[in-house]
Amino acid sequence: MPRIIVRGVGEFEVERGANLLEALRSCGVPIAAGCGGHGLCGMCRVRVVAGELSPPTRREAALLSGLLERGWRLACQATVLGDVEVEVPLRRARVKRRLRPSIPISTPLLLIPVRVVENPPSVEEALISELRRLGVNVRTASLRALASMAAAASRGGSDKIAVIMDGELVDLIDDYRGFGLAVDIGTTSVAASLVDLASGNVVGEEVSLNAQLRFGGDIIARIQYAATRANGVRELQEAVVDTVNSLVEKLGVPSERIYRVVVAGNSVMLHLFYGVNPRTLGSLPFEPVYRRSISARSGELGLRVNPQALVESLPILGGYVGGDVVGDMLASRILEYGTAMMIDVGTNGEVVVKKGDRLVAASTPAGPAFEGVGLSHGMMAVEGAVERVKVSWEGVEYRVIGGGDPQGICGSGYIDLLAELLRMGLLSESGRMVRGPRVREREGVLEFVLDEERGVALTQLDVRKLQLAIAAVKMTEKYLLRLLNVDVRELETVIVAGDFGYHLDPSNAMEVGLLPKVDEDLVEFIGNGSLTGAEMFMLSREAREEALRLAEACEVVEVPRHNKAFIEELKLGKWREP
Amino acid sequence: MPRIIVRGVGEFEVERGANLLEALRSCGVPIAAGCGGHGLCGMCRVRVVAGELSPPTRREAALLSGLLERGWRLACQATVLGDVEVEVPLRRARVKRRLRPSIPISTPLLLIPVRVVENPPSVEEALISELRRLGVNVRTASLRALASMAAAASRGGSDKIAVIMDGELVDLIDDYRGFGLAVDIGTTSVAASLVDLASGNVVGEEVSLNAQLRFGGDIIARIQYAATRANGVRELQEAVVDTVNSLVEKLGVPSERIYRVVVAGNSVMLHLFYGVNPRTLGSLPFEPVYRRSISARSGELGLRVNPQALVESLPILGGYVGGDVVGDMLASRILEYGTAMMIDVGTNGEVVVKKGDRLVAASTPAGPAFEGVGLSHGMMAVEGAVERVKVSWEGVEYRVIGGGDPQGICGSGYIDLLAELLRMGLLSESGRMVRGPRVREREGVLEFVLDEERGVALTQLDVRKLQLAIAAVKMTEKYLLRLLNVDVRELETVIVAGDFGYHLDPSNAMEVGLLPKVDEDLVEFIGNGSLTGAEMFMLSREAREEALRLAEACEVVEVPRHNKAFIEELKLGKWREP
Repeated sequence: MPRIIVRGVGEFEVERGANLLEALRSCGVPIAAGCGGHGLCGMCRVRVVAGELSPPTRREAALLSGLLERGWRLACQATVLGDVEVEVPLRRARVKRRLRPSIPISTPLLLIPVRVVENPPSVEEALISELRRLGVNVRTASLRALASMAAAASRGGSDKIAVIMDGELVDLIDDYRGFGLAVDIGTTSVAASLVDLASGNVVGEEVSLNAQLRFGGDIIARIQYAATRANGVRELQEAVVDTVNSLVEKLGVPSERIYRVVVAGNSVMLHLFYGVNPRTLGSLPFEPVYRRSISARSGELGLRVNPQALVESLPILGGYVGGDVVGDMLASRILEYGTAMMIDVGTNGEVVVKKGDRLVAASTPAGPAFEGVGLSHGMMAVEGAVERVKVSWEGVEYRVIGGGDPQGICGSGYIDLLAELLRMGLLSESGRMVRGPRVREREGVLEFVLDEERGVALTQLDVRKLQLAIAAVKMTEKYLLRLLNVDVRELETVIVAGDFGYHLDPSNAMEVGLLPKVDEDLVEFIGNGSLTGAEMFMLSREAREEALRLAEACEVVEVPRHNKAFIEELKLGKWREP
Repeated sequence: MPRIIVRGVGEFEVERGANLLEALRSCGVPIAAGCGGHGLCGMCRVRVVAGELSPPTRREAALLSGLLERGWRLACQATVLGDVEVEVPLRRARVKRRLRPSIPISTPLLLIPVRVVENPPSVEEALISELRRLGVNVRTASLRALASMAAAASRGGSDKIAVIMDGELVDLIDDYRGFGLAVDIGTTSVAASLVDLASGNVVGEEVSLNAQLRFGGDIIARIQYAATRANGVRELQEAVVDTVNSLVEKLGVPSERIYRVVVAGNSVMLHLFYGVNPRTLGSLPFEPVYRRSISARSGELGLRVNPQALVESLPILGGYVGGDVVGDMLASRILEYGTAMMIDVGTNGEVVVKKGDRLVAASTPAGPAFEGVGLSHGMMAVEGAVERVKVSWEGVEYRVIGGGDPQGICGSGYIDLLAELLRMGLLSESGRMVRGPRVREREGVLEFVLDEERGVALTQLDVRKLQLAIAAVKMTEKYLLRLLNVDVRELETVIVAGDFGYHLDPSNAMEVGLLPKVDEDLVEFIGNGSLTGAEMFMLSREAREEALRLAEACEVVEVPRHNKAFIEELKLGKWREP
């Protein structure tokens, strides 16, 4: 099979006779292609360094003219005849690195240059005929597109770019820019990424606290608020929609250019986002109202993106285990392992264990400590947060996100602190702080001082809250491992999802007992997999199908809550036996 | 073939072995059937007076119990085996008689009794399974239905009525009431009727002035406003949506129980209703932006009905000839005649002529005179309007809608007045008023006094405005008749649509020249056919298909505007030669 070398990206094998654009996209290369491969937009141009491709077509001659001689081609018009080396002018992603597996890209958007002419029998019919002539089938136009047509139509014709989503003409615009929004709704924080739908590249990412926090810190509080207040659901829905709207604003593109939204989150967050009361999740038998991937129009939700945009969710697996875990599973490709464990630690923690054909998942209320909420100097993993700490008898070293002075400590910083103090004996396995260097008493409570000047410290109370959070996750991990009869030594990988995990030091996570003791190399950090999964769901037909398959295949279990067992798990320290 | 006699309705022939409910509905009998014939709702019960039907089923035994012995059956469960006579408990329509042809009824709504139980794996999936067990296939639930499920779900189960539209579960309610709204948007007035979607019966009707009137009296003024003001389209759209919302309020049912809306109107009215600028209709080549039947969600339009309701329009034929004419053609069954003419006289007048396979239509700006607007004592055909007038040398007799004192004169009253004054010589063919009994001068202008006490009169100025309106229609009629080479004597029918026509005296309409001189018996008044057509589109699959066929088959032509010819047509009086 011929090989394609993409400079600076990698080397791939493809079928002889393959279309170059499709070949690149099937290898996950995020190459722009507005018109979906019709040779109309000119966005997919690549420079051929060497190799065998089919001769240029007439459309290439028209769109590239002089560039053709200098080796440029439209990938959508070129057929691979042998080995080929190309340079793809990739738009660089402007976001922190998240691992996104190489998946075949098939964005739902087309951008086609058209002329809007006042021709019989109507402007719409004339335009749809023109598109058909170009090889693009459009069934219908949205009200917004009709409104744009009415504004643009003239006897001579006006040049526009037609935006087509899933066979519907949704808009007429003046440049080749159309975006998708992926959203991860966490109980504590909400993250959103902006996807360029022409290329599949992520071009922006923002995070902020979930405005629902004012109604309670965890999902139980949210359910109670929804179940007992007259307008509870509406208030909670408005709060999270406002949060997403503020993220859209921060992302800085015209909101009406966002044509698709995919949302991930735990079951309660997804219910509330769509205005569905999660009250049945609040009591036995803990059933969700729905599980499937919802598809609503943004207008129904008050979301400030294009009013015709579809707002889809990743499917819920059952109970509290929602679309966030589906996203993590897509992003981590967990199905490709024989035996694996995955954790996503947020306010609601989720654990998945896979062995052979079985896939089990459970959720646990960890509380917001890992997200830095409720701790004396806690903060989210954003600029100014201490994300890594090293403590020795000589002193303390720490790393602050974005450099600069420490404003507080985020989850990973707290795990480092606990691990280091455990190693030094400044903290007992039971979580009691011991007097020593940098440990002082303030208002009767011991605290370990990280930064004297700003008073940033870990208090005895913080340790207690972190212990509770770690114990909740640990108990769930052990329960699922026992359920599938997995020995920790069998694990081929331990996947850590979540922004918190992204900054985590694996040996320290094992030291405090958040992860089982395995070879450090086996621990994989995928960052916010829920967000990555939402992007994949938006960009890839294969990922979409896999998500729906996962929703069928995964068993959701309830972890029995025995007080005695839980108290046992409060003990900090390494573990191997589930 | 067996005969079905429906007491008080009529006698029909049906196939042996036919389902009784389907047989009745295919004959156009508006019989209630919430569950679509699954024997679940018990609404389709009829009393069998005599005849051969299949034996009662188990579902009938469960739902009817004692009534069974007294001859009651569920029509949906009974098979016709021979002649049968039944009594159908028809809900009487509470509206003025409009002719609606007997069409097979197939309402888009199902009302199915269900239990909403908190069962695994989710409330929605459990409910959809229950419906499937009952024989009802539902693909998905709307957000509103999910919200209702969340409120209703309990471990034991709550009884609800599931509202299903086109395979989507849209609501959960507590009784068997679901409605549709048919709307006719005229340039001057807007009419709406409320349809009981369980039976197909019309249960209410309201009319009011189009709030767009403040932006100009005719469609040209509306187009100019839309084309030249920054927010013109939005203002015009809001005005008509407000008008429809006020009609919904007057109809007095909970607005969220309206699950489907069908809108008819001329092209400009339909463009504005959907927020599409009609500017291309304002200048050559007068093409509409779109022609097809639009389908939008009520939420997109600000319509206060169920937010998930689909708002559909009748297709536009071309130019100014819109969905109102399609509605008229459905209601009048014009396709069943060999040679026929139809007029719909509103602010914008439309004329259709059919001969053999050809069907041509044209529109004409008649102005709002026929709707009583712009005349010194003009008013709509509502309570208090003089609708019929007889003048003799002895005096004046008139009929007021709703009895009572005359408040003003509506279109049909004006036509009567013109005809009577012509006959008596008090008005010349050129439209000049002549002094005589009841003719007096006021501020230099002659007027014919109808009611001395209230000062209700026809002025010379009114006559001029009416002449212009009549001439516009007449010129269009003659042009189309000539185009298809139709002699007036060939016409098998002259159909008069529009609320104005409903009150019209045919001989007087011929006397003034609004209609060609034909045998009076050939003139058919169908009332607001646009509204009736919208109801038919909502209630019958056959009507829907016919509407789409008509949109294909009808040629729309422009009537050449020669000043000289128009001035000729200003002359009042009978005509036969086109």
